[in-house]
Formats: sequence, structure tokens, C-alpha cells
Amino acid sequence: MNENAPKIQEEPREEATAAETDAKLAELEDRWLRAVADLDNLRKRISRDNERLRAEERARVAAEWLPVLDNLELALSHAPGGQGAILEGVRAVRDQAVAVMKNLGYARHEEVGVPFDPTRHEAVAAVERPDVAPGTVVEVLRPGYGEGKRQLRPAIVAVAKKAE
Amino acid sequence: MNENAPKIQEEPREEATAAETDAKLAELEDRWLRAVADLDNLRKRISRDNERLRAEERARVAAEWLPVLDNLELALSHAPGGQGAILEGVRAVRDQAVAVMKNLGYARHEEVGVPFDPTRHEAVAAVERPDVAPGTVVEVLRPGYGEGKRQLRPAIVAVAKKAE
Repeated sequence: MNENAPKIQEEPREEATAAETDAKLAELEDRWLRAVADLDNLRKRISRDNERLRAEERARVAAEWLPVLDNLELALSHAPGGQGAILEGVRAVRDQAVAVMKNLGYARHEEVGVPFDPTRHEAVAAVERPDVAPGTVVEVLRPGYGEGKRQLRPAIVAVAKKAE
Repeated sequence: MNENAPKIQEEPREEATAAETDAKLAELEDRWLRAVADLDNLRKRISRDNERLRAEERARVAAEWLPVLDNLELALSHAPGGQGAILEGVRAVRDQAVAVMKNLGYARHEEVGVPFDPTRHEAVAAVERPDVAPGTVVEVLRPGYGEGKRQLRPAIVAVAKKAE
């Protein structure tokens, strides 16, 4: 710091300054590289998150419509063999609603005679049915929509049990 | 560059190196600051984009259900005064569907007697109606859902015109 110090004494200070500068350079380069890496990771995460967000919102909205479809079927179930333009019209609307669900990625499933599958079925009854193999779905009480990651809800079913 | 050059000639080279180091430091600091700023902007953009993505998906899915609701009303319109458990049930389902739309942010609007508003109405007919002010909505041919940024569709209306 002494301007009048001889040249020989200045050298170590200059070297320390160079080392400090190198350290600062290295630190800044490290910070920059980390910020760039964070930015890259964030960009990658965004595109994954976007699809997840859309799927979540799609499922949320479809789930809001599910009771409407259920109740439409419930209303129709009171006239199983009913005729007339209005009933025909309402049945067509029910089919349209099922098609909308399928189009959104939530295909309806209500098969009987298939093996019980805990990922697609929720068993609420076990019934003795000597004519079918134990563990077979014998009745669908409420259809399921979607499968795997895109499952809106499992089918509620009755399953055959062994005769006692 | 000459190793044997006298000391007096070394000074400018050392100063040039220090200047270069300073420049590199400044450049690195600038790069780091810019990367950090990019990161910040990206984070802010993400939270805005997330809500936009959700809103887009919500509108897309709701729009898929709209024809189901329209057709349900069309089926019901064939029995305007009809009685019976089934019709009552289907009317309740229609009301439920309208409530789902409202719950998703798309309230139904089908008011007559209000001034025509191009942001909410689409006029398909102009009718002479001496009893109301010109520009008044006199009939709603198809209800609208949602308003402003959250409009799913405008109401299709007939508007009173001046008597000729």
C-alpha cells in the first residue's frame, strides 16, 4: 500500500493479487456455469411439467362431468325398454358423453367374464357362481373410465368366489 | 515477448495482462448476472404459463362437453311440458351439467331484454319489435357460457331493430 516501497517488495503483493484474481475468475466462471446449468434443467423440467399440468387439469375437469354421465344413465335406467323420441334422444346423448370421455383418454370399461384386476376393478361383492372360475368379474355395478396412469376411476364389480 | 527485454519494457505487457484479466472478470460477471436474470425471468414466466396452460386445457375439455349439454337440451325441448320420473330425472341432469359449467368458470347466460353486447352476444337475426328499444336482445337461440377471457362461446341472439 506504500507507494514509495521498493520494487522488490511489490512483487509478492502483485502475485497475491494475481492469485486472488484467478480465484475470482474461477469462482465467477463456476457461478456462470451453474446458472447456465440451472437454466437448462429448468427448461427441461418445464416441458415435462407442462404435459403433467395439462393431464391433471384434463382429469380434474373430466371428473367433474362424471356424475353428470352417471346420473344420465341412472335416469335412463328407469326406462330400460322405453321407447319414444325423447328417450332415444337422451340415449344418444349418453352415447355421445361416453364418446367424449373416450376422446379425452378415459375409455369406458365394463366387461364381465374377465379376470378381476385390482388396477382396473374395485370389488364390492363376492358371489358364489359355480359356472365361472373364482376371481372372474360377474357383474359391473358402475363402469370404470380410463386405465393405468389415465384412470379416472376403476369399475365397481362383483367377483365370483369359490363355493363353500 | 522478448524474455531478454529490459525490465522497463515488461511493465506495459503486465499492465495489458491486468487489463485483459479485468475484461475477462467483467465479462464473466456479466455472463453470470445475465444467466441469473434469465433464470429469474424463466421462473416468473413459468408460474404465469402454468395458469394459462390450465385455463387452456380447462376450456378445451369444457368445450368438448358443450355439445353433450346442447343435445341434452335439444332432446328435452321435444317435451317442453312433459311429466314423468324419467323426464324429471333428465331435467335434473341438465341442471347439474349447467352447474358443472358454472363451477368450471363458464356461467351460462341467456338473458333477454338486455342491450346487445358484441363481447357476449352473436346476433343472427334482427327483428322489428316496436315495444322494445332497438339493439335489445329479444330472443336467445343458444345460451352463451362464460365471459371475457373465460368465454367458452357467446350467446346466439336475435336483436330488435328500428321499424322501417
